[in-house]
Amino acid sequence: MSEPTFSASGRLTDLICGTREMNAVWSARQTVQSMLDVEAALARASAEHGVIPSSAVAAIVAACNADLIDPDALMAGAASGGNLAIPLVKLLTAAVKLKDADAAKYVHWGATSQDIIDTGTVLQLRSTFDLLEAGLNEACDALANQAAKFQTTPAIGRTWLQQALPITLGLKFAQWLDALTRHRERLAQCRSRALALQFGGAAGTLASLRDKAPLVALSLADDLDLQLPSLPWHTQRDRIAEAAACFGMLTGTLGKIARDISLQMQTEVGELAEPAAVGKGGSSTMPHKRNPVGCAAVLTAAMRAPNLVATVFSGMVQEHERALGGWQAEWEALPDLARLTGGALAQITAIVSNIEVNAGRLAANLDLTHGLILGEAVMLALGDRIGRLDAHTLVEHASKQAVTTGATLYDVLSNDERVTQQLSLIELQALLDPANYAGQAHAFVDAALLAHRSPSSRSLP
Amino acid sequence: MSEPTFSASGRLTDLICGTREMNAVWSARQTVQSMLDVEAALARASAEHGVIPSSAVAAIVAACNADLIDPDALMAGAASGGNLAIPLVKLLTAAVKLKDADAAKYVHWGATSQDIIDTGTVLQLRSTFDLLEAGLNEACDALANQAAKFQTTPAIGRTWLQQALPITLGLKFAQWLDALTRHRERLAQCRSRALALQFGGAAGTLASLRDKAPLVALSLADDLDLQLPSLPWHTQRDRIAEAAACFGMLTGTLGKIARDISLQMQTEVGELAEPAAVGKGGSSTMPHKRNPVGCAAVLTAAMRAPNLVATVFSGMVQEHERALGGWQAEWEALPDLARLTGGALAQITAIVSNIEVNAGRLAANLDLTHGLILGEAVMLALGDRIGRLDAHTLVEHASKQAVTTGATLYDVLSNDERVTQQLSLIELQALLDPANYAGQAHAFVDAALLAHRSPSSRSLP
Amino acid sequence: MSEPTFSASGRLTDLICGTREMNAVWSARQTVQSMLDVEAALARASAEHGVIPSSAVAAIVAACNADLIDPDALMAGAASGGNLAIPLVKLLTAAVKLKDADAAKYVHWGATSQDIIDTGTVLQLRSTFDLLEAGLNEACDALANQAAKFQTTPAIGRTWLQQALPITLGLKFAQWLDALTRHRERLAQCRSRALALQFGGAAGTLASLRDKAPLVALSLADDLDLQLPSLPWHTQRDRIAEAAACFGMLTGTLGKIARDISLQMQTEVGELAEPAAVGKGGSSTMPHKRNPVGCAAVLTAAMRAPNLVATVFSGMVQEHERALGGWQAEWEALPDLARLTGGALAQITAIVSNIEVNAGRLAANLDLTHGLILGEAVMLALGDRIGRLDAHTLVEHASKQAVTTGATLYDVLSNDERVTQQLSLIELQALLDPANYAGQAHAFVDAALLAHRSPSSRSLP
Amino acid sequence: MSEPTFSASGRLTDLICGTREMNAVWSARQTVQSMLDVEAALARASAEHGVIPSSAVAAIVAACNADLIDPDALMAGAASGGNLAIPLVKLLTAAVKLKDADAAKYVHWGATSQDIIDTGTVLQLRSTFDLLEAGLNEACDALANQAAKFQTTPAIGRTWLQQALPITLGLKFAQWLDALTRHRERLAQCRSRALALQFGGAAGTLASLRDKAPLVALSLADDLDLQLPSLPWHTQRDRIAEAAACFGMLTGTLGKIARDISLQMQTEVGELAEPAAVGKGGSSTMPHKRNPVGCAAVLTAAMRAPNLVATVFSGMVQEHERALGGWQAEWEALPDLARLTGGALAQITAIVSNIEVNAGRLAANLDLTHGLILGEAVMLALGDRIGRLDAHTLVEHASKQAVTTGATLYDVLSNDERVTQQLSLIELQALLDPANYAGQAHAFVDAALLAHRSPSSRSLP
Repeated sequence: MSEPTFSASGRLTDLICGTREMNAVWSARQTVQSMLDVEAALARASAEHGVIPSSAVAAIVAACNADLIDPDALMAGAASGGNLAIPLVKLLTAAVKLKDADAAKYVHWGATSQDIIDTGTVLQLRSTFDLLEAGLNEACDALANQAAKFQTTPAIGRTWLQQALPITLGLKFAQWLDALTRHRERLAQCRSRALALQFGGAAGTLASLRDKAPLVALSLADDLDLQLPSLPWHTQRDRIAEAAACFGMLTGTLGKIARDISLQMQTEVGELAEPAAVGKGGSSTMPHKRNPVGCAAVLTAAMRAPNLVATVFSGMVQEHERALGGWQAEWEALPDLARLTGGALAQITAIVSNIEVNAGRLAANLDLTHGLILGEAVMLALGDRIGRLDAHTLVEHASKQAVTTGATLYDVLSNDERVTQQLSLIELQALLDPANYAGQAHAFVDAALLAHRSPSSRSLP
Repeated sequence: MSEPTFSASGRLTDLICGTREMNAVWSARQTVQSMLDVEAALARASAEHGVIPSSAVAAIVAACNADLIDPDALMAGAASGGNLAIPLVKLLTAAVKLKDADAAKYVHWGATSQDIIDTGTVLQLRSTFDLLEAGLNEACDALANQAAKFQTTPAIGRTWLQQALPITLGLKFAQWLDALTRHRERLAQCRSRALALQFGGAAGTLASLRDKAPLVALSLADDLDLQLPSLPWHTQRDRIAEAAACFGMLTGTLGKIARDISLQMQTEVGELAEPAAVGKGGSSTMPHKRNPVGCAAVLTAAMRAPNLVATVFSGMVQEHERALGGWQAEWEALPDLARLTGGALAQITAIVSNIEVNAGRLAANLDLTHGLILGEAVMLALGDRIGRLDAHTLVEHASKQAVTTGATLYDVLSNDERVTQQLSLIELQALLDPANYAGQAHAFVDAALLAHRSPSSRSLP
Repeated sequence: MSEPTFSASGRLTDLICGTREMNAVWSARQTVQSMLDVEAALARASAEHGVIPSSAVAAIVAACNADLIDPDALMAGAASGGNLAIPLVKLLTAAVKLKDADAAKYVHWGATSQDIIDTGTVLQLRSTFDLLEAGLNEACDALANQAAKFQTTPAIGRTWLQQALPITLGLKFAQWLDALTRHRERLAQCRSRALALQFGGAAGTLASLRDKAPLVALSLADDLDLQLPSLPWHTQRDRIAEAAACFGMLTGTLGKIARDISLQMQTEVGELAEPAAVGKGGSSTMPHKRNPVGCAAVLTAAMRAPNLVATVFSGMVQEHERALGGWQAEWEALPDLARLTGGALAQITAIVSNIEVNAGRLAANLDLTHGLILGEAVMLALGDRIGRLDAHTLVEHASKQAVTTGATLYDVLSNDERVTQQLSLIELQALLDPANYAGQAHAFVDAALLAHRSPSSRSLP
Repeated sequence: MSEPTFSASGRLTDLICGTREMNAVWSARQTVQSMLDVEAALARASAEHGVIPSSAVAAIVAACNADLIDPDALMAGAASGGNLAIPLVKLLTAAVKLKDADAAKYVHWGATSQDIIDTGTVLQLRSTFDLLEAGLNEACDALANQAAKFQTTPAIGRTWLQQALPITLGLKFAQWLDALTRHRERLAQCRSRALALQFGGAAGTLASLRDKAPLVALSLADDLDLQLPSLPWHTQRDRIAEAAACFGMLTGTLGKIARDISLQMQTEVGELAEPAAVGKGGSSTMPHKRNPVGCAAVLTAAMRAPNLVATVFSGMVQEHERALGGWQAEWEALPDLARLTGGALAQITAIVSNIEVNAGRLAANLDLTHGLILGEAVMLALGDRIGRLDAHTLVEHASKQAVTTGATLYDVLSNDERVTQQLSLIELQALLDPANYAGQAHAFVDAALLAHRSPSSRSLP
């Protein structure tokens, strides 16, 4: 056909940032279809209570099909009407009229444009929550697996981008897992507030439906399986803002994971690598290069999300019963946020699920300071015997000597009688083994795994 | 004394944006005291488990007093150390040493700077939650009172800044109330996640406390009455981000209220006025002027908050075990947010509690279009008798005639036989009374009041 | 054809926010074409200096046609490669190969992906500057016309949304004009910095072009008519950030204009109206309603633009020679900004060019306070004769009396002997005429018109 | 004295983020003094044209001293008046009255609060420009010195955080320098627009000054050495927005520098280090640790600045002749921005001026891939002799072999007859020397140094 149809693609970068599933939820076609689903449900609910004739329902419902809508006409009409629902209702009415001129009179009965647009958005938000919740479960499982697998694998802990003290690789996964566990809880709480019907008519009073208003509203909510709120919320946007905030916060945590992995993928660090995939991040002429392509996409999302959240928050300051600018600012910001969040979550899940761990580099990096990262461990052991102050002084001097001479800390200490009188060489070696100075890392991983497995215990009031 | 002390005031605008109570929570002095409270609790908890000698506790606790700290030395030390805890520990240690040289060795035992700063911040967040929850209760009560008081007072509903259909003044208050009810729920849920101890030591493993680590952590959390998290969260900032988001969202709703009130205070509208107060918003030479000084402060907060939230969200992307920039970005953004939120909430509460309602202007504005805002009401009533389509055509023509001639819609309609054959003049007058076309406004107010009174029913899982 | 092609439309809201012209500049198709234009120019420049054989040029240039590129393959390839240039080069190479296998070896010679993407973006920026400059000229001319036309038309000046003192309607237009004049200057300065070739190869040294590098770079810049910068700027994004800032600032000023107009369009104010257009902002059932549809779009743009700028600014913190996240964050933010700016500018130009001015409402609003807005004028005149202090007291009391009794200030003053002994009734009437108390409004309009007509005098160094 | 005075410090973190000089410019005291400087100048200008008696000037000017102002009274008054100027004028008037009751009548004659606040801010902006311009000169000189010093020092270029190809260390400095050169140009252009007097009176018409208005305005601008704009700009905030944008962009570039340096300071990279300073970034127990304390402060600034800019941009949408919220949003955002920018600039200058370069680590990192980063160099040389395609295949296989076997690329290639038949071992060694494959790095440094030395040539129209 030569007729215009909905393009599969919006922006060329859509697949860099988003997933096909999430992109589909917020595609032009699905945006239109969601609004039409609301119009169809409205026809059914209105007919149920005698507000419109039952005979009109079939024709209206049949026409509520996005494929019947000409996107170019829709876009052009939106430009003059100021929103998508105004031309959509016109196009829908025209489509109904072709089949049933009488039914066409009852399209959109009692509703205002914003009722259709907002409720359509809520339906898309529900799909978004579904995808994110499933994605979070998958991500958490993947992190839990890796946390368990590497629970005791020594790794260097870094602060200020400097090597500090040993940790375990499992602890890093457990840290990320723990944060995602909380995001899962937040999403569930947000969902319970956000999925509310919008239905208020021109000024939010449903006046034109007269005494049938409460009945139609209830049936409409039931039909769409949405919460019926205490009252319409045309200019009370906290539900939308909370969804945006949840998406943004989740993306922030995903960005933290991506930042860590990309830093650990540096040529000079080499501890981790994104799973290899054909055409992904490799270079034929530079085979040593392993670009963190997935991490880059997540970091981009984490850089953009805060400002999209800010836009939605700024938009909360809306005028009177229906607003001028603030509402409209959500239209592209919220889909962008959902798309970025879904994309980032999928990337992290894919990366974490099959991440490559380079045991040799992990160990080599722990040895990079020749034992200096374990000075504290020796100091504590010595302190038990000669007092903490003396132990501190002794180890501090030894460390400086090691730095100056390039010797290992073991070499320096094992040649110091004040040490060897207290600690055998075997004891000293054990103290300088990073695996023996990971503190509570093991227990912390257990705690995170426990919280992951029984999140319900945490979300009880 | 000539010694430097903490200044009561930070910025000169502090009292425009904030309340004295909230400013006090985040004052320089209280920031220091909160950190010192953590140090004192750490000394007690460590001594409880024999990590430090019991004899050291008294001297340390006694020195944990912000008044003993020189703010200039603290600030200068922070500049080179990069955070406040490093110089604070030095100054604290020096203060302890003056009284008990031995005890001074045990200051800050096992903790890292970030443990002290973060837990101090959490203590300040707790006070913030306390103030906001109390403030929200007060604001909700004030709104509920006004919603009930003006439940049936007709007012014009406006969309796109244009008069649309009648609503009631009570519905406006109920709308605002309904949003705040949800914010109350969010704050409670956020609080249950956010008030968690930070205690991990240099790399988050508590290694230097060896087997005593879990015991000290538990006692420390108990002492400070904070949640003991599964693991430290030095670079997992979702708790902080959620608090920031909650503050930002609440401020957004408050901004919406301020926007509405300030629009209704316009000289040309005149329906509402901020409560009169000496020196507040009046002008001796322009006695007609009633500046919305309180609303302006709230609108400013609502303009700034989203970007402060964005800063905290951006900062979530933190490196490894302790971060470089993202953490530090919270230090001024979070206090600013808390301050702005507290200030905006207090302003709205004060305004709403004693808002001046100009009944005459409410009525006059409803009459401004000479009945056009009630064309729909007439159309519906006529439609019952002559069919909707004819009624629509008839009223549309009558409305246009009224606009063209400057006559009232009543004049036009009451001179049209097609109308008077169906509707008596008394019926027509009733239809053109805004009080009779407020739809579900009354019921919506009831629903919002109910939700306000029994919020617990909504927050159950 | 059944083959996938570039969809005309990206997002359904594109025509609400943007213009067809600006949308076209940043369309998927043009984005691809711009990159291909760079590839074609690169082939020419390389052949000119013998880097690739001259025989390869024709085939490469011929294939540099966006219509030959499959957008779905491009998008899918971008997902794994991390940017659009990687798959585009593959698709281009394949397209060349079909015609000339040998030429295909010389596609993209010496360039890195970012060279192509950035230079392509710069070409799109040039078109954006062209459109904005033309648009600004048109907007300024329209504002200048209105400023001149209404130079002496009295209007009320408002502060804090309250009526304050008289101004003229022309002054409002002149104020807006004056700001746009400065934006014109900024855009010109920004353009002179921003339109720079990006060409550095894999690490920004052009190493693979060996001694031919400077020659190829110069020819490439000439071919594309771009500035040749001192060095490549892969991770120095200040040029892009400045363009973003200029767009954002311009949109801010346009938002200010839209805010004012929409406030003046309020039913209760009614001084201005957007030009009437079929299907634009009207309502058949509410003929009194004149929705500021154009202003709403501009206000939306002004709400979104600051956060898009913030994203580009945040992205400036880029790693080493080519970055991880910051660069990618520009890809959607910059086009969105350009589109919003172009759309907002076109809306304001259209609105201002044919704005409807309601002289009756302007006058009525000036009379709304029954003369109180002119108390200062009387006070000054009286002050010349009886001293300012006495005059102040007298007028202040009179104003309060007018407010209390509902009388006009003229009534009160003309019945006060202390006034009438000094001022004749004719003098008093003249003082209470807003046209006589517009201060420098007339002169300020002249100054703005002058600056508009001779901007060059201001932009000289 | 026990009287309240201005505290030296606002926030405890002021010295982490800012410099003493910039903090002083925006201190509470200087903010007040700047406003008082405007009041003093206004008295002089008004007296010059007979608007107020000459006899009043001395008393007014003498009282325009911040030390005479009680900050607590000022803050409390600001809370009810909504801005600082209202209570300041009251306090100033009271102070004048103590000395000269008659002069007190002429304080603030003809001005509105915003005239004083805005012009005071402009005076502070002037000091800010002065500090930033001097700072930029110093930073550019430091960068130019290092660029020249390390012009030929090989370093590894990194893309996607992966080693890519050799560059020189000088090129990195030159890249940073080049961006700062453009910021210098932008600041100068912004300054020429931003430093404009604000003087319009209550509604921007200077009506109360009648025919003396232009004369007083001109004298006031001259007195303060500010530009006299075409008209007042109370709600046209593009000048302020541009200053904010310039600060934000500069901070973005500084953040890029800090990001690079902190990455090069990683324990695993070790190429650079911030200059050592007592108590700065070191650790007694972890002597290997060298925290990038300065970089962290800069990165924090670069994370916060974009959102402060967004706040100022959002605030541009101001209502009518004086605004409600947007103006007020600048009051803390602009000073914070100036402070962060000044602080970041000082940090980078200090770091770059005395940065520690570890030649051994630079060389070791270049050798980390055992020659793989130079595969392209060999491929190009071989390609000259055996054709590019064969050369590519050969080197690609050799590189993979090197990766697989752990051999150096030299080992693999020098054992391949196809290579040694074309290239002598000496030639091969030379090709594998990073110093020989830095492309245009040397020339690019020259170009950046040239642009630095003759910026004027670039800023000509």
